[in-house]
Amino acid sequence: MELSFQKSGGLVPAIIQDQRSGEVLMLGFMSPESLRLTEDTGEVVFFSRSRQKLWKKGESSGHVLKVAEIRVDCDDDALLIRVNPVGPGVCHEGYRSCFFRALGADGRATVIAERSFAPEAVYSPSGKGRV
Amino acid sequence: MELSFQKSGGLVPAIIQDQRSGEVLMLGFMSPESLRLTEDTGEVVFFSRSRQKLWKKGESSGHVLKVAEIRVDCDDDALLIRVNPVGPGVCHEGYRSCFFRALGADGRATVIAERSFAPEAVYSPSGKGRV
Repeated sequence: MELSFQKSGGLVPAIIQDQRSGEVLMLGFMSPESLRLTEDTGEVVFFSRSRQKLWKKGESSGHVLKVAEIRVDCDDDALLIRVNPVGPGVCHEGYRSCFFRALGADGRATVIAERSFAPEAVYSPSGKGRV
Repeated sequence: MELSFQKSGGLVPAIIQDQRSGEVLMLGFMSPESLRLTEDTGEVVFFSRSRQKLWKKGESSGHVLKVAEIRVDCDDDALLIRVNPVGPGVCHEGYRSCFFRALGADGRATVIAERSFAPEAVYSPSGKGRV
């Protein structure tokens, strides 16, 4: 099976879901190489669009994502990666999930989750992009 | 709050999750207009990358996605839309979720779900893109 990497400029979106709780933790993008590394190492490796390079999730925080299962969609252009996350959360803002805000009818985003860790204790000041 | 639409060519990826079961059903893309229509109507409207136009999910099948909650991620560039789906499934192949296959170590995709409906009874032969 060949994934359609060309639709998003050589990358496919990869949804990260906690396989135990079902919670959607984040969305990243993968290049063919990052998918191969993810499969070979059993830990999620994205391709960072902002930095244009491979990005091992948890490389600085230790909050790696252990792969339980990789699913592919009907059009071969999106991945759903079910993981066992290591550590208290995946988000550089200190939350278990990056989707910790809900959009209201007024267009404002409201925080709907509790912080699960103190990000300043985990990340260096310049570490935002290397969570 | 302003979403970052420019990162993916004017579109943001939108993960669709069944709010009752937690199952991830599909991933689509949204333009500013499709997001506005989704918010205003309470039913999911994507922007089709292949057809370059608005795409009301369920416009031909009736399998619309009723919006329960819209979440936004920490970088303002991805959406998680929790829905109550109408009908037996969202996938034009006849499955509840578009993620009905798992990637094996050999690179092959294996079907891991049961069909929940007969797609030929729901879609016209040319209807693949208008599910």
